Amino acid sequence: MKDNLIITIGRQFGSGGREIGKYLAEMLNLNYYDKELILEASKASGLCTECFERVDEKAPNRFFNALSKGWLSGASGMPSGGWSDEMIFKVQSDVIRDIADKHNAVIVGRCADYILRDYKGCVSVFIHAKEEDCVRRIIERNSGMGESEARDLAQKRNKIRAAYYNFYTDKVWGDGATYDMCINSSAIGTKAAAQLIAEFVRQRGLIE
Amino acid sequence: MKDNLIITIGRQFGSGGREIGKYLAEMLNLNYYDKELILEASKASGLCTECFERVDEKAPNRFFNALSKGWLSGASGMPSGGWSDEMIFKVQSDVIRDIADKHNAVIVGRCADYILRDYKGCVSVFIHAKEEDCVRRIIERNSGMGESEARDLAQKRNKIRAAYYNFYTDKVWGDGATYDMCINSSAIGTKAAAQLIAEFVRQRGLIE
Repeated sequence: MKDNLIITIGRQFGSGGREIGKYLAEMLNLNYYDKELILEASKASGLCTECFERVDEKAPNRFFNALSKGWLSGASGMPSGGWSDEMIFKVQSDVIRDIADKHNAVIVGRCADYILRDYKGCVSVFIHAKEEDCVRRIIERNSGMGESEARDLAQKRNKIRAAYYNFYTDKVWGDGATYDMCINSSAIGTKAAAQLIAEFVRQRGLIE
Repeated sequence: MKDNLIITIGRQFGSGGREIGKYLAEMLNLNYYDKELILEASKASGLCTECFERVDEKAPNRFFNALSKGWLSGASGMPSGGWSDEMIFKVQSDVIRDIADKHNAVIVGRCADYILRDYKGCVSVFIHAKEEDCVRRIIERNSGMGESEARDLAQKRNKIRAAYYNFYTDKVWGDGATYDMCINSSAIGTKAAAQLIAEFVRQRGLIE
């Protein structure tokens, strides 16, 4: 069986990781998964979209609630009346593996690099940027938001992403050695970062 | 004044960082500094080479002795009968800045990325590799060394490098966000890694 090309992107909040993922998908003709992944997972499992958004990286309180209640730590950790966060993570992981089996794809977030760590065609990337650039991007996306609020939001989201990743994997979110390649998007911009990742994939022999 | 091109390379022990640095220096016609740096520093300051080797990244015991005795924490921390490690670090930093002022260069290790953090022409890189590849490289360099010994040595050296870097800077050794670019040399090999760094430097607009 041919190994599909999968590029996973972890990223600091506001670092332009999603933008880079979209450039890459366009440049190399790959499918792109981000929020869409959650929807696809919902459909495949028959679970409601809301269930997935509950443990999505963007739902810090619920995630930490789950952590503090120990829902995530045991195989039988299903809270009464719903799916446990761990079970939802399991379904998401199955969906990610299913995508990797069927498509060439860019997958942003959701521990995809770890879930696909044994896939030969998988390249894992982490994007970060100067705080001022992250703040600028966050403000552009949220009209009316002030600088200090955007800075706080970035810090909180990064903490959540790190906690989520470090809980579900045996690696460290944002650590250089966790990924095949990390790039400071502030240094070269998002388009050049995407080109550089494509060059890495080429050097790996995964594309011509 | 023209900003010189400086590429700093932090690296896991045995990851091929030095090899990559040498390829880069050759490829882009840059000066290369590693051990040579220590010697140059010695000459410039009039200190003996041994004084520098004492706090070199390769002298873990002495470094931790210095840490435990608090020699590194105060400006006046000079042990009787010699130069304090902090003073030697200061001289090394001056030498690194002097190199950056005068030459286009690759500088391996020694917190050069942090020392030159405000230099516009500086690109900071971190190299890591799979443990098995690091072990293989270490054994190649040390005939007669066994696998388990090489693994232990790598772990110790990395701990020392991290402690040294984290002590002298306000960043985290090996953390993705500390550097402009991190590369897993196991994924693409050292030559391709050097080419990719050159491409990053090109995208930054520092070379044509």
